[in-house]
Formats: sequence, structure tokens, C-alpha cells
Amino acid sequence: MALVVQKYGGTSVGSPDRISRVADRIVATRAAGNDVVVVVSAMGSTTDELVALAEAVNSRPPAREMDMLLSAGERISMALTAMAIAARGVEAVSFTGSQAGIITDAAHGQAKIQEIRGTRVREALAEGKVAIVAGFQGVNPDSRDVTTLGRGGSDATAVALAAALDADVCEIYTDVEGVFTADPRIVPDARKLDELSFDEMLELSAGGAGVLMTRSVEFGRRYGIPIHVRSSFDDSEGTWVKEHTMEQAIISGIAHDVSEAKVTVWAVPDRPGVAARLFEPMAEAGINVDMIVQNVSRQGTTDISFTVPKAAVETARQIAERVAGELGAAGVQVDADVAKVSLVGAGMKSHPGVAAGVFRALAEAGINIEMISTSTIRISCVVSGDQVEDAVRALHAAFEPPMVEAEVGA
Amino acid sequence: MALVVQKYGGTSVGSPDRISRVADRIVATRAAGNDVVVVVSAMGSTTDELVALAEAVNSRPPAREMDMLLSAGERISMALTAMAIAARGVEAVSFTGSQAGIITDAAHGQAKIQEIRGTRVREALAEGKVAIVAGFQGVNPDSRDVTTLGRGGSDATAVALAAALDADVCEIYTDVEGVFTADPRIVPDARKLDELSFDEMLELSAGGAGVLMTRSVEFGRRYGIPIHVRSSFDDSEGTWVKEHTMEQAIISGIAHDVSEAKVTVWAVPDRPGVAARLFEPMAEAGINVDMIVQNVSRQGTTDISFTVPKAAVETARQIAERVAGELGAAGVQVDADVAKVSLVGAGMKSHPGVAAGVFRALAEAGINIEMISTSTIRISCVVSGDQVEDAVRALHAAFEPPMVEAEVGA
Repeated sequence: MALVVQKYGGTSVGSPDRISRVADRIVATRAAGNDVVVVVSAMGSTTDELVALAEAVNSRPPAREMDMLLSAGERISMALTAMAIAARGVEAVSFTGSQAGIITDAAHGQAKIQEIRGTRVREALAEGKVAIVAGFQGVNPDSRDVTTLGRGGSDATAVALAAALDADVCEIYTDVEGVFTADPRIVPDARKLDELSFDEMLELSAGGAGVLMTRSVEFGRRYGIPIHVRSSFDDSEGTWVKEHTMEQAIISGIAHDVSEAKVTVWAVPDRPGVAARLFEPMAEAGINVDMIVQNVSRQGTTDISFTVPKAAVETARQIAERVAGELGAAGVQVDADVAKVSLVGAGMKSHPGVAAGVFRALAEAGINIEMISTSTIRISCVVSGDQVEDAVRALHAAFEPPMVEAEVGA
Repeated sequence: MALVVQKYGGTSVGSPDRISRVADRIVATRAAGNDVVVVVSAMGSTTDELVALAEAVNSRPPAREMDMLLSAGERISMALTAMAIAARGVEAVSFTGSQAGIITDAAHGQAKIQEIRGTRVREALAEGKVAIVAGFQGVNPDSRDVTTLGRGGSDATAVALAAALDADVCEIYTDVEGVFTADPRIVPDARKLDELSFDEMLELSAGGAGVLMTRSVEFGRRYGIPIHVRSSFDDSEGTWVKEHTMEQAIISGIAHDVSEAKVTVWAVPDRPGVAARLFEPMAEAGINVDMIVQNVSRQGTTDISFTVPKAAVETARQIAERVAGELGAAGVQVDADVAKVSLVGAGMKSHPGVAAGVFRALAEAGINIEMISTSTIRISCVVSGDQVEDAVRALHAAFEPPMVEAEVGA
């Protein structure tokens, strides 16, 4: 008997028919002898519809009220899911984020989970019931207001809840079969990965793989909760994300991200404290700076390039121009038409030739590299936006992930 | 400076445009120097849509989950209303039933308000904010579950909240101009009443006038909160319902009700305890028995007739047939095609000719009276369902309500 946390996204609960299929799966999991906790997102387009209603009455809706509004979405899907389970003769009870004790900070719209109490969820399990919990939402104990967790929030709820309940596995049901070696829409022969490590998944997620957000992978890694990413439309095994994998791939997969823009500050005087002067005000403005590349000094100056979300690029430009003026830099250049491609694999740290292989593959495809950033298990290159799909295909063809140790020896 | 509680029904908040108009009115009330608490229902057809979703996944949805589901409706409308007010530069904050401290019993789907704490509402008012409260919903403190109040629940929330906050007035905004002397769809020259007493309104509501449910009138009467029923589409005065009215009408209005069916138990042996044997099991089955008429005994037996909601008539018939068998009564007859017409007026108690006038007017219109029941300020007759509109028109023509004392003297 295991404790299984299952998370179903908006597409999986997008209609009464789909909710009924989800209920079949939950009841089957329960019938197999497991305790089951289910986390649901809002149905399909509900969130978009609610956002449109809000914008129709207020072009800048207050964040507290926006959270109050959006949290209605999971309330609907969770009650319907509980009803569909009850229709199959299994007792189920639904809980809001607040009722489940999902305690967050006060940052409406992008709240962070601080603690999961889960008292009522445990009580429901002890009574033999299936517990349904609203994803994406929590409560701030100081204001006693409802909060939402922002993008990827329901996954974060599921993995954090699994950690709090010491679950055996957190299953993330989605509309794809698992984690792929690259986006199948770009690389038709991309393969589903059977397993990969938390670190690899973190790098793929940070690199733009949308199937899991980094925040939920971080929860899984921190608390050692295996995450099983799988399709809600069939029973096949998906991708296991866990601490130790059977095979250590040199290259697990290729992620790409077109959501960022590049900012360059030219000819910054190269002296201590320059980077802090530039990036502290970015942090204060809430701008999530991703890649930062600083070249070696030439004639006492250096160029600093970095990427930020496209939505934040105008604010970033204003800050960069102000700081550039104060520092006596030559100027600021913004390029919104860029994309990042990342090659990820836990085994690459012991294979020094991988980076060179990346640069060669991109060069042979006629793709210019604008920025390079690496970690021990990732190589990321910023390229022109119109070349990103070519870059993904070129790298996938060159490395054929998942490339495992055994194959290296062969 | 007064404290005004305003309640807007589903039609009044049925679209972003209408919510914006409601916000205009709220902001104007605030600008006139009043503290404002707003109670909203779910938008237009939201509740029906949610019920349809529930029925699509479970033909008998559990009541707790149904309440969880339906309570999403007000959450949406209240957040949108708060946003629309904020768009006009006035601070507003929305509260669920639970957050507003609307404490109810545990009867999901038809919960009764036991207490209104209102702590957060008072805090919001003290901070100069408009407080928006979800109608129709509350929380049961033992189970910590969300409850809904059933039909007319939002009006009950508004009047009870007005009582708890010691408000100066509770304004009920609706899609009609106020309380009419009869249903204007049936009597084209029905007139809007300027004012009437709680007792009269109670009798009209109990008689089928849908504009206010009896439960909210009862709250108003018990705590002395004047209720102003008015249109959300213009600024005209509606109908004031209060303890003491300037003019005491002999006849205030005519209500009718087609929602009930008639059950007759023939030739019941006339001995003590018979009525209790019949109506105790009805109460235990949760059947709301309205009119009860028992004729005088003839040859040791009597006939007992009563009305019940049409939805409960089959259960009532089964109970009546069982009890009739036990008592040795002659039989049970059910007639679903009946309607009740009621003439209401606080002044009729001192005018003994009113009842006779009712019977004469109905006779002249060729309408047979099947049952009669009276209170000090009401005369109700059950007639054939296909004659109810004729009955309303005949009584309106005969008494021309509001018929006031002054006119009697003239």
C-alpha cells in the first residue's frame, strides 16, 4: 500500500467527459490498494475566461482580487472531480488550498509555498477517502487572503504536498507522454525519456522544457519525491524524474526557450562592483535575469550581456541605460529576436568533448552563436530567434539523445 | 453618514457591463458619505451552468461537493465587483461567506444562518473600504465546510448582515422596480407599492410573491432593518418594507403561487391525534406543508386537505396513503393542477367584509374555490391551476390595491 499524489492539468479535466475518465483512473489507483491524493488545475480555458472578465471591468485589476477570482477555477474542477469519484462508489472530499493548509507568502499572483499543513488531507485519508486538493492556490496566514502560485503552480502544489505527506510518488498527468529528448513538434524523431535525474530535469526546465516547471522539480529534489510525468490519455509509463537513475546519460535532451530577450551593455569600465551596480537594480525591479555573460577585459573595458523575459525587456533597458550612463559605458543594445538552446546531460561533466561537439554541430548548420553559458551538466547557446528550430534539430541529430554510457563504450 | 448594505442579484451582475454599472452606483453611494457593504449573487446563468456540469459527472452529486462547486459562482462575481470599484478609484475588498463569518448549520444546500461574525467586514469599513460579501454561502464551524443557503439565500445574507452590522438600510436591487400590488405580467395595471409592513411582506412572500423570500423578511422584522426593494437599472425609489408604515393599507396586494399541489385524505375518523399521525411523518420527510384545511366532522369522519411543493407530492402521497390505511380513512386524492391566490393587507383585520368580497369577486368570475385559509392579514384560496390568472385579475379589479384607510372614508 502506497501513498500516491496525482496531479491533473487543465486539459485533463477540461470537460465532464474528461473528468469522468480522470475519476476512472483515480478509482483504479485506489482499488489497487493505494491511498490517493489528487491535485487538479482549473478546467481547460477557465482561467483565460476569468482573466478576460477581469480585464473587462478593470484594465489593472488588484492582485488580491485577481487571486480571489482565479481561485474559483480549481474550486469548480475539484468539486466536479470529487463528484465524479463519488459516482463510482468511492468517497472523495475536495479541499481548497486554504483548507488543505497550503501556506504561502503574500505575493499575490506569484506566491511561494512556505509550509503545507495538510491536516484535513490526512484526516480524509485516514477515513479511507480520496482527497482532492485545489492546485495553484494557497492562503497567506497574515492577511488570511487567498493567493495563487503563478505559472506551474499546480505542479508545485502536487510535489510539495507529496513531500509534506511523505508520498511514495507524485504523478504529473499531462497531455504528452512524458519528457522528450527535444520538442517533438520540432524534432519528429525525438524520443521519450524513461528516466532522468532531478538535476537534469532542472536544467531542461530552466532551458525551456515546458512539461515541468523548475519550482516543482526543486521540491522533488529537496524532499526526494520521485516524479512520474505521464499521459492522462493512456496507461503507458511516462518519464520518471528521481534522485538516482539506472543509466547515466551523457546527453538526456535538448531544451529551447524563445521567451527571453538579450541585453548588452557595451564597453563597461572593468572594475570591481560593476556587475553589482547593474544587476542589483534589476533584482529590485523583480526582473528575473537568466544568462549572464561577461567577456574578458579589452583596453580596460568589458561587454556584459544578459537575458531577461521578453515582458521585462523595456524595464531592463531603462535600468541598463541609467547604469551605463553612471558607469560611463558606451551604450546599451537590446535584441528581442533571440532564443536559447540547451543541451543537458548528467554524464557530460566527465566527457569534455561535448561542448566542442555542440559548437561544431551549430557551425555546420550555419548557425551563429551569440552567447554561451555552461554548467557542469548543461551547455546553453543563445542564437538568432529564426534559427532556433534548426539549432535544436542539428544538436539532436549530432548527439541522438538519450546517449548513454554504454553507447560511448561501443 | 449611514451604513448601507446593498444586495445585487444575478441579473444585476450578469455581465462585465452590468457589473460596471453596479460599481457606478456603489461608488456614488460611497461618495454621498455612506459606508457601503455589498452582497452579490453569482452572475446570471453561472449557477445553472455549474449545476449542469455537476449533473454531467454525477446524477446525484454529494451535497457537500455541490456547495463547494456552487460557491465558486459568487467568488467570481464578488471579485469582479471589487475590481470594477477599484477601477473607479475606490478601495474595495471581497470576502467569501467564510471570510465574512457567515456561520451556518450543516444542512448543505439549504443551510440556515446561525450567526454573523463580520469581523473582517468591520475592519474593511474602518479602513474606509467598500466590503463585498458573497451572498448565498456560509461556513459550518464544526465541519469547516462551505455551505449554501438555498433559494433566496443572497437576500438572507444581505438582511442578516445588515442586522449584524446594525445597518441603517438594506437595499435589495433587482430587475423589477419594487413590490407590486400583483404580478404585472398578469395584471397590466398593477401598481408599485411605496411601502408596506414586514407582516404584509411576509404574507405576500409566503403567498408566492417572488421578489423577496420570507426568510429575509423575517430577518428584517426580527432586527428592525428597513428593506428597500428597488431596480438596479434606474435611480427611482422602490418599495420600502419596514416596521411601521405611514399609511395602513386595507389591501396591499395580491400574490399567487403555482408551485404547490393539493393532497386530500377523505373520511378520516375524527378523533384526537389524527392530524399529528399525518403531519409528523411529513415533517420527518422534510416536506414543507403549507396550507392545511380540516372540515368539521360529518358522521364521525372528516376530510383533511393540505398543500405541498409539487416536487414533494409523490412522497407526500405515499405517506398519506400509508397513514390513511392505518387510520381507516376512505382514501387519498392528489391534485397537482392547483394554484393559490392570496389577498394581503394589514388593515383587513378591522374590515370584516374583505373575506366576503373575495368570495364574491371569485364567484362572479366563475372561479370555484377549492380550499380557504386565512390569517389576520391574509385570505388565501386554492383554485384550479388554469383559473389562477383570472382569479388574480378579478381580485385586483375588485379591491384596486393599494386600498388605504383614507379611501375607505371617502
